[in-house]
Amino acid sequence: MSKHYDVGIVGGGIIGQSIAYQLAKEGISVLVLDRHKGGSGATSAAAGMLGANSELEQNDAFFQFAKESQRQYHLLQDELSNFSQIHIQLVDKGMYKVALSQEEAIALKNAVQHHETLEWHTRETVLNHEPSVSSEIEGALHIPEDGHVSPKHVCEAFTKSASLLGATFIENAPVQSIKKASVNDYILSTPQGDFTCNKVVIANGVWSGYFFKQLGLPNRMKPVKGECLAVKSNTLHLEKTIFYDHCYIVPKGDGRFVVGATMVEDDWSTTPSLGGIHALIEKVSPLVPGISSAQLISTWAGLRPQSEDGKPYIGVHPEDDNILFATGHYRNGILLAPKTGTMIRDFILKKKIDENYVRAFSVTRNLAQSNEVIV
Amino acid sequence: MSKHYDVGIVGGGIIGQSIAYQLAKEGISVLVLDRHKGGSGATSAAAGMLGANSELEQNDAFFQFAKESQRQYHLLQDELSNFSQIHIQLVDKGMYKVALSQEEAIALKNAVQHHETLEWHTRETVLNHEPSVSSEIEGALHIPEDGHVSPKHVCEAFTKSASLLGATFIENAPVQSIKKASVNDYILSTPQGDFTCNKVVIANGVWSGYFFKQLGLPNRMKPVKGECLAVKSNTLHLEKTIFYDHCYIVPKGDGRFVVGATMVEDDWSTTPSLGGIHALIEKVSPLVPGISSAQLISTWAGLRPQSEDGKPYIGVHPEDDNILFATGHYRNGILLAPKTGTMIRDFILKKKIDENYVRAFSVTRNLAQSNEVIV
Amino acid sequence: MSKHYDVGIVGGGIIGQSIAYQLAKEGISVLVLDRHKGGSGATSAAAGMLGANSELEQNDAFFQFAKESQRQYHLLQDELSNFSQIHIQLVDKGMYKVALSQEEAIALKNAVQHHETLEWHTRETVLNHEPSVSSEIEGALHIPEDGHVSPKHVCEAFTKSASLLGATFIENAPVQSIKKASVNDYILSTPQGDFTCNKVVIANGVWSGYFFKQLGLPNRMKPVKGECLAVKSNTLHLEKTIFYDHCYIVPKGDGRFVVGATMVEDDWSTTPSLGGIHALIEKVSPLVPGISSAQLISTWAGLRPQSEDGKPYIGVHPEDDNILFATGHYRNGILLAPKTGTMIRDFILKKKIDENYVRAFSVTRNLAQSNEVIV
Amino acid sequence: MSKHYDVGIVGGGIIGQSIAYQLAKEGISVLVLDRHKGGSGATSAAAGMLGANSELEQNDAFFQFAKESQRQYHLLQDELSNFSQIHIQLVDKGMYKVALSQEEAIALKNAVQHHETLEWHTRETVLNHEPSVSSEIEGALHIPEDGHVSPKHVCEAFTKSASLLGATFIENAPVQSIKKASVNDYILSTPQGDFTCNKVVIANGVWSGYFFKQLGLPNRMKPVKGECLAVKSNTLHLEKTIFYDHCYIVPKGDGRFVVGATMVEDDWSTTPSLGGIHALIEKVSPLVPGISSAQLISTWAGLRPQSEDGKPYIGVHPEDDNILFATGHYRNGILLAPKTGTMIRDFILKKKIDENYVRAFSVTRNLAQSNEVIV
Repeated sequence: MSKHYDVGIVGGGIIGQSIAYQLAKEGISVLVLDRHKGGSGATSAAAGMLGANSELEQNDAFFQFAKESQRQYHLLQDELSNFSQIHIQLVDKGMYKVALSQEEAIALKNAVQHHETLEWHTRETVLNHEPSVSSEIEGALHIPEDGHVSPKHVCEAFTKSASLLGATFIENAPVQSIKKASVNDYILSTPQGDFTCNKVVIANGVWSGYFFKQLGLPNRMKPVKGECLAVKSNTLHLEKTIFYDHCYIVPKGDGRFVVGATMVEDDWSTTPSLGGIHALIEKVSPLVPGISSAQLISTWAGLRPQSEDGKPYIGVHPEDDNILFATGHYRNGILLAPKTGTMIRDFILKKKIDENYVRAFSVTRNLAQSNEVIV
Repeated sequence: MSKHYDVGIVGGGIIGQSIAYQLAKEGISVLVLDRHKGGSGATSAAAGMLGANSELEQNDAFFQFAKESQRQYHLLQDELSNFSQIHIQLVDKGMYKVALSQEEAIALKNAVQHHETLEWHTRETVLNHEPSVSSEIEGALHIPEDGHVSPKHVCEAFTKSASLLGATFIENAPVQSIKKASVNDYILSTPQGDFTCNKVVIANGVWSGYFFKQLGLPNRMKPVKGECLAVKSNTLHLEKTIFYDHCYIVPKGDGRFVVGATMVEDDWSTTPSLGGIHALIEKVSPLVPGISSAQLISTWAGLRPQSEDGKPYIGVHPEDDNILFATGHYRNGILLAPKTGTMIRDFILKKKIDENYVRAFSVTRNLAQSNEVIV
Repeated sequence: MSKHYDVGIVGGGIIGQSIAYQLAKEGISVLVLDRHKGGSGATSAAAGMLGANSELEQNDAFFQFAKESQRQYHLLQDELSNFSQIHIQLVDKGMYKVALSQEEAIALKNAVQHHETLEWHTRETVLNHEPSVSSEIEGALHIPEDGHVSPKHVCEAFTKSASLLGATFIENAPVQSIKKASVNDYILSTPQGDFTCNKVVIANGVWSGYFFKQLGLPNRMKPVKGECLAVKSNTLHLEKTIFYDHCYIVPKGDGRFVVGATMVEDDWSTTPSLGGIHALIEKVSPLVPGISSAQLISTWAGLRPQSEDGKPYIGVHPEDDNILFATGHYRNGILLAPKTGTMIRDFILKKKIDENYVRAFSVTRNLAQSNEVIV
Repeated sequence: MSKHYDVGIVGGGIIGQSIAYQLAKEGISVLVLDRHKGGSGATSAAAGMLGANSELEQNDAFFQFAKESQRQYHLLQDELSNFSQIHIQLVDKGMYKVALSQEEAIALKNAVQHHETLEWHTRETVLNHEPSVSSEIEGALHIPEDGHVSPKHVCEAFTKSASLLGATFIENAPVQSIKKASVNDYILSTPQGDFTCNKVVIANGVWSGYFFKQLGLPNRMKPVKGECLAVKSNTLHLEKTIFYDHCYIVPKGDGRFVVGATMVEDDWSTTPSLGGIHALIEKVSPLVPGISSAQLISTWAGLRPQSEDGKPYIGVHPEDDNILFATGHYRNGILLAPKTGTMIRDFILKKKIDENYVRAFSVTRNLAQSNEVIV
């Protein structure tokens, strides 16, 4: 029979491994089970933007949570490198969220008032800093804090650090069912056999929908497929990420520009379609005209896990606080991974957690009221 | 709600797709669900040898079944190409099963007596036909019928042909549980939602162990990991597959030589280890010395699904003949795929099936008596 | 000092290797030098269409030569497989050259009169045979003989067959200069050292421009870069190649659809640009609308070698018949490789060659008169 | 006609691009021509060790030059990131050069006396720091300064920085010949056409042998092929590079362990052979036994350019100081690239250069006396 673990985590992507890392640091025995290879799902499809300001527009608990998570990366960078020797490739040069019309410019200028670090840059200022950007823009919101990391390397660094701290990580172990055997004793059944643990964390992104249902909860998880591509060029230079209408060009620290992403609802395929790549090229080419001459080096796709209101579920099962959820991170999985890791750790260690966060990400939050348009 | 299907097949590898193809040809509505991408498991890891004679040593029902399946490929080649335009790359130039010692030579010479197409070739004859083979051999058993196909292309040809004939194939749809809703109504639950069907075929190789258990059966499925590599060379020529002690060098029709395979028990990882590749090189280099100078182009690994007695389960659930199994093909999945497809089709269509085959592959065969050594 | 060879061939692509194969079969000692890896240039970038009728519109010597070469593939298929065990993946199901406008339809209908195997198919007939083609077409010219091969496998089959027949093939051996040492003695200088031979064949495609100049000839060689992509789909089916305005969708025998190609003049880069792939998608999507849903699996680019009049140079140096040229095959290198191989062989063996071919492909043909528009 | 350049550089690997970068920073117009793709030769095959102390054993000019170059990387790291946004992945955690026998231990202990930063570590100390190292070792020389970089990223960062500073880089432009047209006017002939410049730098590694000869010099350049592999593991941890008898295991900052390298003389092929990889595995497995369980992820090969005495040529042509050489860096191209760049820059700007370096790397140094054994 397998060893018994304090905590069993379903899902070895960046969320699950961030949790595993935080728990292993506390000396908790932890098991991570991944259906396939760790980080091979939404994690490695992501561009890695830390877009707290660019993605989130209201100054609410979600925004505060995102900002804290963004800041955590600055500590994690060295911490993870010390444990694992893996560099997470944090780049911290900011972002331009551009406006192509007067209307868009007005909307972005409004944002400046609510967030002190943001600045409105005129067309001239933008072109001064980023001469490759189209002169057709009206201007851009400058967001100095929104950098980016390499999601693959963050996930590998969490995984290896957790492993060296004692966590167990098993690949090719899809969890078929989660069953309560007795008080404080859960059985995770997989084709590799059964594993037992005191607490379970469900952290397998879009695949977690099944477990909400199996565990008696009405929450749903929908895939929003995103198609991406990467280009290279010796003559195109960007310092900052260029962002417009959910699409972006991210100048990565390895010389690639990562361009994303389409938004295809209810499509579970994980390969890019010809039409999707076509649409993506049409969307971003006008932002940085020189990108047409860049060399196309790869294309890929992944599935963002979208909850009913577009916010993650980070919290306990309403009837059993030994079952925790950390899923539904939608477009923000990379950004939110660090803080999700520490918040789940705090749930497990019964530490104090900011009530605003508990409410905001509660599995039982009043979803009916959350009638935001999800974009 | 999803469409209802006559038959739901769990697993989109070569076995599941062979079944889907045979059913779709009969006008049966069929759904194939794969946990990941079709054919991405053991199918694409296989070398594609059609080793009826080289792998099986007794002239029993299993052997007859294998021979029939081997012959089916000759018809399938054109049939699948007509439907799908995909060539399965059948090569039909035979195999040498070599002996390095006097003892091995004697054992192989015995085999000649039982199978009329087999011949013992002396060292001189072998070197005459295959000058690249080591002159250290004692001789070899010549097996003219044991050719090979490209497993990836067979699986894709089955998939596309079935699809064009009306079958539905859904990727990224791991079946979490199989439940009976009512008579003739099964629910296959997946993160993508529930699918219903009249009959279920479990054809997901090593991953099927979970469903035997879930469906109340004691049968087990163990992985035997196999690591492989491929080389290329403009100067090395082989006409026939060279086989020795479960290892082989297969001269594929695309110019590669596929070399396999290690046998690692109870290892669920699907990546080759450095030590595994090391062992494989040591094993095959003495057979064809010139292979050391060939260019190493790739390495990979896969999981063979091994039943208790090493033979597949092809048949119905003892208490419910709407649940069928087609799994446990171990080292012979590619070889047995065609005949497995037609046999499962015949079960579903209630056609007459050779009783010897029904018994040999029965889910409830007396495994205790089958005390063969599994190799 | 290196061994002396009868014939030294500069360039190990499909043209050079076809020549090497024909010479080696005659027992001639032959050396092939490639600047990089054999077949890694235009050869492996090509889609492999054998478009004698679709590419060439006049019933002239060039057309006759192309038809002969096309037919040679039917013999080469078995011949090369016997020598090398490599299948060239000849598919022989014809092509539709579609008309989108009335004007285009009239032009294509005219072609029917000159070539007896061609037929005009109305929209209805086309959609009957190929339901995936857009219903917006006017109709299509049916060209039954224009099939396709896998260029990479043809080149590898030539290479391996030649090698097993005694030819020497050296990679990473860029020829820096060709010098006459004495009568019947040429020195090919490379960073690997000097090689000597009685006759030299220059067969390195777009890279051959330098040698025309070095050897005192005015002929030029311009690159016309072509960008391509490949998609896969289980539900999209095409029997025939669909061709329109130099672009095509080729249903390959391995299940891929190869889509090509852009025409970028004077661009020596061998990687696809984002803009090039964009243009290609826009061009072919209207022909087969369902292709937008297909999975994009790869993109690449290559350099077609274009002479002044778009026809190849196959013949001897005007002042020295020990120097031969076999280059400038432009869009038709795969199609013309077999016949180029036998024609160069015949030059070297002093066999009789059709005077029309000698004139048509002469290095000194009156290029001033060849004022055809090159497309 | 092409633009005229101050300096034309033959070869776009790490050496050529380092020079281009230093010249472009000084406002000099520079052209880099690469035969294929920049950095695709020995550069990207290298493991990137900065092994000044581990590779070089005498405290001579060569050693001093290497130490200076090693230190330059610490400045280049930020400088190149500022220009190009590309991180060179400098890791600076030192190296263990291990002894397996008493004799080897004595030899390494001697080295401590000559270099103050070196320390002898006993078996216990080594295992304390690096528990994955075999307990069969006698001890190891600890070399704190010998870190590593990512050669591919260094080369790309040089290339992009130079390009953004005004340098021109042309790929697929093999230089066929170098000719003097007039005083201060050289013609570099390529298939893409002729390029002219005032000065020429020959920096194309093993391919430079041809130009020594063309330019009347007796120097030779031999390839020493090196085969490498990379593995991954979540449980294997190394802080430092482990080095033994020209082989090494380098824990890269991206989580891979790069293992190299074989030494195959006079082999110009750039693909790993099966036998070469076999030998490499046998060599390094005893050093870190746990590596056998690591996942093999890739294998590759490259050609080290070896001069007669194993030291680079960095200097001017004896009869024409407008022709410079920067080649023959053998096992140390990555280590020496920064200092080679500044030294060639100083030659061109007529700045003062340390006479010891001029002599040590002179093209005309008395090679007859340099009867060192090259290892």
